[in-house]
Amino acid sequence: MSLLVVGSIAYDTIKTPHGNAENALGGSAVYFSLAAGILSPDPVRLVGVVGDDFHDRDLEFLRSRRIDTAGLEVVPGGSTFRWSGEYSADMNSRRTLSVDLNVFQDFKPKVPASFRDSKLVFLANGPPVTQMSVLDQVAKPAFVMADTMDLWIQTAKPDLLQLLSRIDGLLVNDSEALLLTDTTDVISAGAAILELGPSRVIVKKGEHGAILFERGKIIPLPAYPVRGVRDPTGAGDSFAGAVMGHLARTFKGRSGGIETRAFKEALAHGTVAASFTVEDFGVARLAAVGEPEARRRFDEYRDWLAL
Amino acid sequence: MSLLVVGSIAYDTIKTPHGNAENALGGSAVYFSLAAGILSPDPVRLVGVVGDDFHDRDLEFLRSRRIDTAGLEVVPGGSTFRWSGEYSADMNSRRTLSVDLNVFQDFKPKVPASFRDSKLVFLANGPPVTQMSVLDQVAKPAFVMADTMDLWIQTAKPDLLQLLSRIDGLLVNDSEALLLTDTTDVISAGAAILELGPSRVIVKKGEHGAILFERGKIIPLPAYPVRGVRDPTGAGDSFAGAVMGHLARTFKGRSGGIETRAFKEALAHGTVAASFTVEDFGVARLAAVGEPEARRRFDEYRDWLAL
Repeated sequence: MSLLVVGSIAYDTIKTPHGNAENALGGSAVYFSLAAGILSPDPVRLVGVVGDDFHDRDLEFLRSRRIDTAGLEVVPGGSTFRWSGEYSADMNSRRTLSVDLNVFQDFKPKVPASFRDSKLVFLANGPPVTQMSVLDQVAKPAFVMADTMDLWIQTAKPDLLQLLSRIDGLLVNDSEALLLTDTTDVISAGAAILELGPSRVIVKKGEHGAILFERGKIIPLPAYPVRGVRDPTGAGDSFAGAVMGHLARTFKGRSGGIETRAFKEALAHGTVAASFTVEDFGVARLAAVGEPEARRRFDEYRDWLAL
Repeated sequence: MSLLVVGSIAYDTIKTPHGNAENALGGSAVYFSLAAGILSPDPVRLVGVVGDDFHDRDLEFLRSRRIDTAGLEVVPGGSTFRWSGEYSADMNSRRTLSVDLNVFQDFKPKVPASFRDSKLVFLANGPPVTQMSVLDQVAKPAFVMADTMDLWIQTAKPDLLQLLSRIDGLLVNDSEALLLTDTTDVISAGAAILELGPSRVIVKKGEHGAILFERGKIIPLPAYPVRGVRDPTGAGDSFAGAVMGHLARTFKGRSGGIETRAFKEALAHGTVAASFTVEDFGVARLAAVGEPEARRRFDEYRDWLAL
C-alpha cells in the first residue's frame, strides 16, 4: 500500500560522547524514508525541500534506497536546513547548538499528482497548519499519522487540536504527551489524547520503549536493547518510518481498519529500526540494513516477549 | 518448592499527592511475602524482627495470608522499624522524612531450624554482611536472589562484592546498577553485574518495566500500565515477591537450573504484583488480590506482548 511522508531534510552536525559528525544527511523525512523503505513493498514517497547545496550523491543515495523523490523540491539559490546539537554524557538529553531553517522556514509542501492517491500518510513534525495543508492535497488516505513537538503544543495549540480531529494516529514522546494533555502520567495522557480525535496514539519513551493506546486498550512494549548507543539522532523518526513501513506491507485496506496485532508488530519493527539507527552516527547504520537483518531482530524481540 | 525471605518489617507513614497513610504495615519482607504468597504453593517463610509494639492484628493478618511467621523475632521492650516519606507530584521521586530503625538497627537474622532446608532464598535490602549471615544458616539453597541499595554500594562495596560471588540472582533498580558498575547505560550495567557472580540480574526501571540479564541474553519487559498510581511504596518488593513466588511453584529443582522462560514469566508476575501494590496505600490492594485476579492480569499482559 502506498506510503507518503512529508517532513524535513537536513544536514546535521552532531556531537556525542562517542564522536562527532559534520553536515551529515539527516532530517525527519530522511530517517523515516530509510526505515520505511526497509519494509515497504513500494517505494516510499517523499515530499520535502532542500537548497541547491543539496549534494547529488545524497539524492542518488535516497533513490538507491527505493525512495521516490518526485516530491523533493529544490529551491534555487537556497540552503538546505542545518541543525547542530550536542548530547549529554548519558545521552538522555541534548542541547541544540544552532538551527538554520533556511529553505525549510517557508516550506509549503507540494504533493505531486502522482502521490495524491497515497493511502498511508505520515506528517513528520512541523507547524500543524503545514501538516494540514498536506491533507488537503491527498485524495482519500486510509490512515494518517502525525508527529508533533513541544513548540507547537505551546504556540499553536488550536491548530494542533484541529489537526488531531483530522488524523487517525498521533506519535509523540512522553513529555509531549504530558504537555499536550496537562497530565502527570503517560497512561492518563495517552488515553486523554484518544479523546481529541485519533483512534491510535503511540507514546514513545526512548530507551524505555513505547505504549500503544487504542480505545479500551493500553499496550506497553519495551525498546530493543542497545549496548553502546553512539548517536540517538533520528531514532524517533526511524521508529515512525518502520511503523508505517510495516503497515504499508500489512494493511490491505479491508473494512475495519488496521488490526491491533498489525499495529503491535509495527511498533516492534519501529523499535528495531531505532535500535539500528542509534548504533552509529547519522543514517550510517540504518542505511546498511536490509530486510533480512531487520527481520532477525524482530524475530529475536518477538521471542523475548513470548510468555 | 520452599521459599524463604529475610528483610524488614515496618510501620510506614506515607504522603503522596493522593493522600496519606499513618503507621501502615510495610517493610520489604512484608510486601515480598504478600506478593509471593499469592503464587507460592507452600507458605512463605518469613524471617524478620519487630518490637513488642507490633500489633497482634498484623501478625494474624500475615498468618491469614499463608505466611509462616516462625522466623519472626519479637524484641521485648523494643520498637518496630518506622519509616516516613513523601512522594513528589509525579511520584517519580520520594523524600525520606524520618527513619527510626529501632529493633531493625541490630537485626541479626536467625533462621529457625524448620526453615534451614529452604530451596529458594530472597535476601531483601540490608547490610551485605547481614545478608551473608543468612546464607551461613541455610543448608543447600537452589537459587538465592538478593536486593541491595545505593547506601551499601557506597559504604560496603567489598562486602557487597563478596555477597555477589555467593548468590545466583541480583535485583537492583536502574540507578543502583549504574552506581555499582560505574557505567552510564543500564544495558552495559546489567551485563557488567553478571561478571561479578550472579547468573541472573534483574534491573528494575519502575514504570518502565525491567530487564532480565543472563549470559548472552538481554530481555526487556515493560511494566503493566497503571492509570492513577496512588502509592508506589513497596512496588519493588512486591515485584520481587511475585518473581520468587512464581519460581517457587515452577522450579522443580531439575538439573540445569531455572529456564529462561520460567524466569520471564516470573518477571511478568512481578510487574503484575507491583501494579496491584501501587493502586492503593500500603499493602491494602495487594492484600486483597487472589491468584485468579493475578492470573487474569498476567494473561492480559502475555496477550499484549504476543507478536
